[in-house]
Amino acid sequence: MQILLTVAYDGTNYAGWQRQENAVAVQEKIEDALETLLARPVTVRASSRTDAGVHALGQRASFFAPDLRVPLEKLPMVLVGLLPSDISVTAAEEVPENFNPQFDAKQKTYVYNIYNAPCPNPLLSRYSAFIPGKLDFSGMKSAAKSFIGKHDFAAFCATGSSAKTTVREIYNCTVEKKDNDLISITVTGNGFLYNMVRIIAGTILYTGIGKIPPEKISGIIASKDRTNAGKTMPPQGLVLLEICY
Amino acid sequence: MQILLTVAYDGTNYAGWQRQENAVAVQEKIEDALETLLARPVTVRASSRTDAGVHALGQRASFFAPDLRVPLEKLPMVLVGLLPSDISVTAAEEVPENFNPQFDAKQKTYVYNIYNAPCPNPLLSRYSAFIPGKLDFSGMKSAAKSFIGKHDFAAFCATGSSAKTTVREIYNCTVEKKDNDLISITVTGNGFLYNMVRIIAGTILYTGIGKIPPEKISGIIASKDRTNAGKTMPPQGLVLLEICY
Repeated sequence: MQILLTVAYDGTNYAGWQRQENAVAVQEKIEDALETLLARPVTVRASSRTDAGVHALGQRASFFAPDLRVPLEKLPMVLVGLLPSDISVTAAEEVPENFNPQFDAKQKTYVYNIYNAPCPNPLLSRYSAFIPGKLDFSGMKSAAKSFIGKHDFAAFCATGSSAKTTVREIYNCTVEKKDNDLISITVTGNGFLYNMVRIIAGTILYTGIGKIPPEKISGIIASKDRTNAGKTMPPQGLVLLEICY
Repeated sequence: MQILLTVAYDGTNYAGWQRQENAVAVQEKIEDALETLLARPVTVRASSRTDAGVHALGQRASFFAPDLRVPLEKLPMVLVGLLPSDISVTAAEEVPENFNPQFDAKQKTYVYNIYNAPCPNPLLSRYSAFIPGKLDFSGMKSAAKSFIGKHDFAAFCATGSSAKTTVREIYNCTVEKKDNDLISITVTGNGFLYNMVRIIAGTILYTGIGKIPPEKISGIIASKDRTNAGKTMPPQGLVLLEICY
């Protein structure tokens, strides 16, 4: 029996999703909780390897558990009881044995939050990038539209990526203002390259501060040159919102 | 010259506003920053002494600074630069020498946030109380209305309060649903007794879980008996939103 979990976490105190030496990762905490529950070592496979400091509300991770005695509908709260308060499991479902949480993902949605006000807001600083000064909001909205479609996103990929192809399809990319001076950039696509959402957010921000004209975005994508795009935004503004299978 | 600051903080890591021995308080951090700036000890007086773990977006605190050389409009960001990232100063204005930030306050607004979903949300757990299970939202809205008016709130005051009178006037008390399963109880009044907002929130929650019928609230207020009201809600759900002079 393979179980697919929906996992939420505040990434502030973690070195990302993936288990590693000399640093605490979210994967390790989930595996530790499952090991406590099942009295044996457990390996979980995630849909996305989020970076250090990145948050999640809809991460997905699966594990094999022919020996699970806890009813599925009670598993989330049992795991919450075994996890630290900055990690939560919000759903659990059974999936076929050959299901792969990474390769079977059809669509992922990330949100990048920018707090745009004269002074920082400590209640939002863990979950947003603080950008003071006036932003050209309509320019940002227009820039976002240029990302939609199937493109070679080589200009929006950090060096060191091992992806076989840099072609990805973006289904939707929107910029919305919420209350409390929060601007949310929401990107939905069939998959993302290393740092891709943070570079897209940085490029949209550059149109907001007037560094890149919104009509230049298509040309930057076509150039496939990372140096033409905006900066990589800091991790704390990024939330992995949803994964669809 | 007396300066009135608007102060925001994430109270998670502080023993409350008021400076004390053996624990770090917000007041101490602000006074340290001002001492660095003015090269002399500075005492700040706050409008509200928020408890350990309670947050603020609109705390007010004043200090005397005939020797301030930083232009007033630049003072907030200069102080932000000297403060830890969980404390921010968002405004600074000059007030008369005889102004008292505590006694001159005409109106204060607090918000109490409840996260009502089957499983916890780690991105909201620092700033809300997690309450799973179905809540009677319309009962809570109706209960909130009963608090409005001038009443003796002795039933909603923690023991150990040194207040001369337990009569306070509540100008408004509302319960609203926001997205992400967040319920916000907003209370505006001319002043609040020790733990009063957290006990009001706990009593409104008790109407939500069916422990207290909404129509009994007026009787509980009239009883002046703390044991009739609901529990004191935990500090992390409370935010001091605004103070008006």
